[in-house]
Amino acid sequence: MNSFGKNFRVQILGQSHGEYVGIVIDGCPPGIRLTVDDFKNDIERRKPGAKGTTPRKEDDIPEIISGVFNDTSTGAPITILFKNSNTRSGDYEKQRAVPRPGHADFVAHKKFKGFEDYRGGGHFSGRLTVALVAAGVVAKKVVGTFPGDNKIEIDSTILEIGGEKDLEKGLQKAIDAKDSIGGIVECKVSNLPIGLGEPFFDSVESLISHAVFSIPAVKGIEFGAGFAAAKMFGSEHNDSLINANGTTATNNAGGIVGGITNGNELIFRIVVKPTSSTPKIQETLNVETGNVEPFSVKGRHDLCIALRVPVVLEAVTAMVLADLIN
Amino acid sequence: MNSFGKNFRVQILGQSHGEYVGIVIDGCPPGIRLTVDDFKNDIERRKPGAKGTTPRKEDDIPEIISGVFNDTSTGAPITILFKNSNTRSGDYEKQRAVPRPGHADFVAHKKFKGFEDYRGGGHFSGRLTVALVAAGVVAKKVVGTFPGDNKIEIDSTILEIGGEKDLEKGLQKAIDAKDSIGGIVECKVSNLPIGLGEPFFDSVESLISHAVFSIPAVKGIEFGAGFAAAKMFGSEHNDSLINANGTTATNNAGGIVGGITNGNELIFRIVVKPTSSTPKIQETLNVETGNVEPFSVKGRHDLCIALRVPVVLEAVTAMVLADLIN
Amino acid sequence: MNSFGKNFRVQILGQSHGEYVGIVIDGCPPGIRLTVDDFKNDIERRKPGAKGTTPRKEDDIPEIISGVFNDTSTGAPITILFKNSNTRSGDYEKQRAVPRPGHADFVAHKKFKGFEDYRGGGHFSGRLTVALVAAGVVAKKVVGTFPGDNKIEIDSTILEIGGEKDLEKGLQKAIDAKDSIGGIVECKVSNLPIGLGEPFFDSVESLISHAVFSIPAVKGIEFGAGFAAAKMFGSEHNDSLINANGTTATNNAGGIVGGITNGNELIFRIVVKPTSSTPKIQETLNVETGNVEPFSVKGRHDLCIALRVPVVLEAVTAMVLADLIN
Amino acid sequence: MNSFGKNFRVQILGQSHGEYVGIVIDGCPPGIRLTVDDFKNDIERRKPGAKGTTPRKEDDIPEIISGVFNDTSTGAPITILFKNSNTRSGDYEKQRAVPRPGHADFVAHKKFKGFEDYRGGGHFSGRLTVALVAAGVVAKKVVGTFPGDNKIEIDSTILEIGGEKDLEKGLQKAIDAKDSIGGIVECKVSNLPIGLGEPFFDSVESLISHAVFSIPAVKGIEFGAGFAAAKMFGSEHNDSLINANGTTATNNAGGIVGGITNGNELIFRIVVKPTSSTPKIQETLNVETGNVEPFSVKGRHDLCIALRVPVVLEAVTAMVLADLIN
Repeated sequence: MNSFGKNFRVQILGQSHGEYVGIVIDGCPPGIRLTVDDFKNDIERRKPGAKGTTPRKEDDIPEIISGVFNDTSTGAPITILFKNSNTRSGDYEKQRAVPRPGHADFVAHKKFKGFEDYRGGGHFSGRLTVALVAAGVVAKKVVGTFPGDNKIEIDSTILEIGGEKDLEKGLQKAIDAKDSIGGIVECKVSNLPIGLGEPFFDSVESLISHAVFSIPAVKGIEFGAGFAAAKMFGSEHNDSLINANGTTATNNAGGIVGGITNGNELIFRIVVKPTSSTPKIQETLNVETGNVEPFSVKGRHDLCIALRVPVVLEAVTAMVLADLIN
Repeated sequence: MNSFGKNFRVQILGQSHGEYVGIVIDGCPPGIRLTVDDFKNDIERRKPGAKGTTPRKEDDIPEIISGVFNDTSTGAPITILFKNSNTRSGDYEKQRAVPRPGHADFVAHKKFKGFEDYRGGGHFSGRLTVALVAAGVVAKKVVGTFPGDNKIEIDSTILEIGGEKDLEKGLQKAIDAKDSIGGIVECKVSNLPIGLGEPFFDSVESLISHAVFSIPAVKGIEFGAGFAAAKMFGSEHNDSLINANGTTATNNAGGIVGGITNGNELIFRIVVKPTSSTPKIQETLNVETGNVEPFSVKGRHDLCIALRVPVVLEAVTAMVLADLIN
Repeated sequence: MNSFGKNFRVQILGQSHGEYVGIVIDGCPPGIRLTVDDFKNDIERRKPGAKGTTPRKEDDIPEIISGVFNDTSTGAPITILFKNSNTRSGDYEKQRAVPRPGHADFVAHKKFKGFEDYRGGGHFSGRLTVALVAAGVVAKKVVGTFPGDNKIEIDSTILEIGGEKDLEKGLQKAIDAKDSIGGIVECKVSNLPIGLGEPFFDSVESLISHAVFSIPAVKGIEFGAGFAAAKMFGSEHNDSLINANGTTATNNAGGIVGGITNGNELIFRIVVKPTSSTPKIQETLNVETGNVEPFSVKGRHDLCIALRVPVVLEAVTAMVLADLIN
Repeated sequence: MNSFGKNFRVQILGQSHGEYVGIVIDGCPPGIRLTVDDFKNDIERRKPGAKGTTPRKEDDIPEIISGVFNDTSTGAPITILFKNSNTRSGDYEKQRAVPRPGHADFVAHKKFKGFEDYRGGGHFSGRLTVALVAAGVVAKKVVGTFPGDNKIEIDSTILEIGGEKDLEKGLQKAIDAKDSIGGIVECKVSNLPIGLGEPFFDSVESLISHAVFSIPAVKGIEFGAGFAAAKMFGSEHNDSLINANGTTATNNAGGIVGGITNGNELIFRIVVKPTSSTPKIQETLNVETGNVEPFSVKGRHDLCIALRVPVVLEAVTAMVLADLIN
C-alpha cells in the first residue's frame, strides 16, 4: 500500500502522465504555518537543470486543496497536488513491447495484470518524489516545533559520484562515457532527543530504512560506521559515553543504539544506483517478438539521479521523525 | 511498538532475565503442521558453542501454548514461549551506574524513565532473537506452501568476518586481539513469484530492511550490487531481460525492481557490528560519580555475534515474505 | 486519523468550504472498469431535493485524478475529487462565537486549538459523505467481482422516520412541528461467503460499526434481532441450522455468528439522529459574552438527514466488505 | 486479526481448552504499578457463581510473564497468561458433527477449514474474556494517570434482564422457562477531556463499538439517547451548551459530538443476546447424517451471560481510552 506512518501518515497518489501527482498528510498538528512559498526552496532543490540532470522544465507549484485555512494547518488531512504538465504520451503504446532495462516496466505489467498506466513509468515514476518533497516540507515544520534546547535540523548532501568525492569529476566520467552513473548521499540530523524508536521492529533504523527505500533508485543504507563495522573490533566500534547528556566520544553508532536515538548526531548514507535511462545502447527483450533486441532511450534524462536525491532524502527522514515525535 | 506485519503479524515479548521470551504469530493460515521438532534445527543453528560464540548453555525448547491443535495450526494466534533458565541477576543493580559501551543501557534508562528491566539487556537483549527464529520456522512453513513451480527457499550465510572471507582467519584476528569483531551476512531467496511488494513505502526493500534492523547489531543493508552501484555506469548496472519469465542476464538489482520482486534471486547483505561486549578494557561514564572510568565486561560473550545471525536473518526474511504472500 | 481499511484502504480529505472534498482509495485491484458515469446513480441518490431534504443545489461530478487509465483501475491509488461550489463564507467569522447546538463546532474548536476551518462544519461537514459515496461505488465494484454462485448485493432502505413506518407521515410530523426529525435505516447484504471476519477485534460487527459511526448523525447500530434480543430467550434467539450450506431457519444473528459471516443475509439497522440544524429557536452559549442566548439556524437545511443516509450506509458497508474480501 | 489499538495495543491469544489464554499489551507506559492483587477485583467480578451464572469453578490467577519488573511496568510488552484448568475434552470429537445453535462451531469449521480447535468453542470461547479483563485492569491504570482535574472513572452496570429493570425478576423468568435470557448493559465514563477521537473513521463511537463487538454475544450498541433519537425532534435531541467548559443542559449525544468527546459523561448501552447454550431442547443439523435433529446442551452454563459482561465492557472501554490518551 502506498501510505506510511502511524501518527503522521502520508498517502501518495498519482502517475507520471496522469493529471496530478500528490500527497495526503494525515496527523499534521493544527497551527503550523503553511504557504505555497514554504515549498519553493525544497522543490527548487529537487528540480532538474544542474549539470548531470535533465534540462526538462517542470513548473512545480503546489496546490494545497485541503487541511490548510488562513495559511495555517487545521488538523484535518492536508492534500497537496502538483499538476503534470508536459505529458505527451503519444508513442508509449508502441514502446510497451520493450520493457526498459532497469525500469519497473516489466514487473508493473506482471503485478498489475497489464492494466498499469505505462506512460512514463506511471505510478513508479521519479516524478512522484515531488510529492515526497512536499510532505517533507510539512514534516520539517512539524519536527521544527519539537520543544528542546535546540531546533532539530536535517541536512543531506552528496558524498560521492561514480566513486569520486569531487562531484564534477564524477559527473565528467559519465559525460565522457556517454553513460549514467551512481552516487552516495549522506543525511545528518542534529539535536534529536534521546529515546525515539522502539527496540523491536520499530527501531529508528527500521523506520528510516523503510521510508528511504521508497525513493526510487536507492539500493542500500548504512548507519554510522555502517559496512566498515564489518572490519572493526568491538573496542574500536563502541562509542564511549563521556557525559550525562549521552554525548559519546565517537559516533560509530550513527546516533542510534538498540534502535533508539542516543542524542548524538543521527547519521546515515544511502547508495543511489545509476539512472536506468542511459544514453548507451543496451539490450532488452521485445516481449512481442520474443527476441532480445538493441534498445536506446529517447529523450533527455538525468545522467546522475543521485544529484536530485538529497532533498528527497531529507523529506522522508523528516516524515519518519515527525511520525516518531508527533 | 513491538509488532510487525499486516497479514502475517508477529508480536515479540519478554526480557533476558524475565520468566520467558516469546512471540505471538497472528495470521498463520490453518492446516500448517507444527511440532516442537520442527524448531530444533533452526534453534540449534542460533545456539552458541561454535568457535567465536559464547559457551553459555541455553536449553531452548519451544512451548507452543496456543494456536496449534493436533500438531497443526488452527488459524488462531500461535504463541511460542522459551523459558529463561540461568537468570541469576544478583549484581545487576550495582552495574546500573555504568552503562555498557555499545549497549542500549543508557538509552533504555532514558526512554523508559528508569523503569526498564536492566538485567542482561532486558527487552533489548539478543536473547529475544530466539523468538524471531521461532517465528521464522512458522513463516518458512507458510512461505513453503506458496503454490509455484518450485518451492521458495531462503538461505543465509556468513560472507566475511573482520574483512576476511576465510572465517577462521577472521575469528583468529579477534582472538589474537582479545577483542570482538564484526562481519557480513548474505541472504538469498530463490523461486519467488514476480510482483510482490508495492511501489511506494511497502517496497520489498522497505519491508525487508524494516524487519532486518530489528536484529540487534545490524547497521547496514544493501540489495544486489548494493553500495558498489555508486561506482557503476547505468549500462553496467542495468540487468537485461532475456526471456518472458523475467530472467535477467545479470542480477545487480538483487531481484527487486521498482520495489517489486522480478522473479530473479532476491539477494541482499547486512553488516553486523562487532559484539558490544568485548574482553578489552574500555571507558564509559559512571553516571553516579559523573566520571569516565575504565570498564571491563564480566562473563563470557560471543566474540563475533555475526556467527549467530544467519538463521535470524532467514527468520525475519521469511516473516516478511509470509506477510506478502499471505 | 481519517483513513480506514487494511487491504482496501480509504483516506478521506477536504472541508465543506475548501476547494475540494475527496477520497484516496488504496488497494483497489487492477482491471476494474470505472467511468464518471458509474458514479452518477449513487451520487444522485445522496443528493438533496426530495421532500424533507435541503433544496440546495450541488453539482457533484467526480474528478478521477489518479489510479484510473483507459477507464480502468490500474492498481495504483485512486483519487476522486469533488469541487465545492457555492462556498460563500462571508459571515462565518461572526458566527464563531456561537457554537451551534448538536454540531461539532465547540469540540472542533477545542480539539484543533482554534485553527479548525470553521466554515460550514469544515472537515466535520456532511458534505464529505459525497466522498464516502464515491469510495462506495468503487467498493461495490470490487465486491461485485467476488467469485461465487451469486453476486453479492448491498441494499439499504429507510425503515422509519419519527417513529412512523410511513415515511410521508413521519416527515409531515417534522414539517408541522417546524423541526427536524430522526429515523432508522436498514442495510441488507445477500450472497456473502461464509467465513469473513475474525473472532476477536475484527469481527464483521466490529468493522461495520467502526465504518458506520463515521457517517455523521449515526448514534446506534444493531445486528439481526438487535436490541430486541434483550427480551428474548435463548431458544427463541438461536437460529437453527437447516442445511449444509449454513442456511438457518431464522436470522436473529443477522448473518454473523462469533463475529464471522455465516452465509445468511447480513442485516443491520442504524439510528440517525434528527438534523442538528433545526428551524426551531434554540439556546446555546455565546463564548464571547459568556451568556446562553437564543439561537436560530440560517439557511435551508435537511429536515431529516436520515433520508440521505441509505446510499452512504451502502457505501461504508461496501468498503468494509471490499477490505475483507480483497 | 486478533489485535486492537494503535498506541496501546492488545493481542489476544489462547483457546478454551488449550494450555493458556492470555493477552500481550504493547504500548503501556513505564512506571505503572502492577501486581497480581490489582487484578483480583475485576477478575472476581467476571467470575461465575452468582444466580444465573454457571457454578463452574475457575481459578483465574494472572501470570505476568513479561513487561513488569519490581511490580512496575517497564515499557516493554506486558504478557499476562491464565492457565486453563478443568479442560477435559474427551467427548468433543463426537459432538463435532452437531454444530451447536447460536455458537460459532459451524462458521469456525468453514473458516478454518476443519483445523479449528473445536473443544469448548476454542478461540471463540467466552473464556477469552478473562484476558480482556486483564488488559482492562492495565488500561484503567493507564487511563487513571491521565492528568486532569478529576480522575477518569469507568463504570458499567446491568440495566435490564429479559426486559425487566428488576434483575431478580428477569432472571426468574429464565429459570421458570428453563431457558437462557438476554439483557442490556450500560457503561458510563466521567471526567474525560474534550477532544478525544477523530472526525472520520476513528470517531470515539467507531473505536468503542469496534472494541465492544469483540465481546461475545453483543449484538447492538447505542450512544446517548441512541435508538430513541429516531423518534425525536432536533430541538429535543440537541444538547444546549451552558458554559465554557462544554457542559450541556442535556446529554442526548452521550458525550460525543462529531465523533469527538465533548467533556460530558460518555454514556452508551449494549445488548447482550441470551446465552446460546440453553437448557431447552433445540434443533440443529447433524452434518454427518444431513438430518436436522433434536439437540440438548450438556453441562452447566450461564442462564444469562449479560450478568458477567459489565466488567468486560469496562475493560474494552478502558482499552480504547488508553489508546486515545496514550
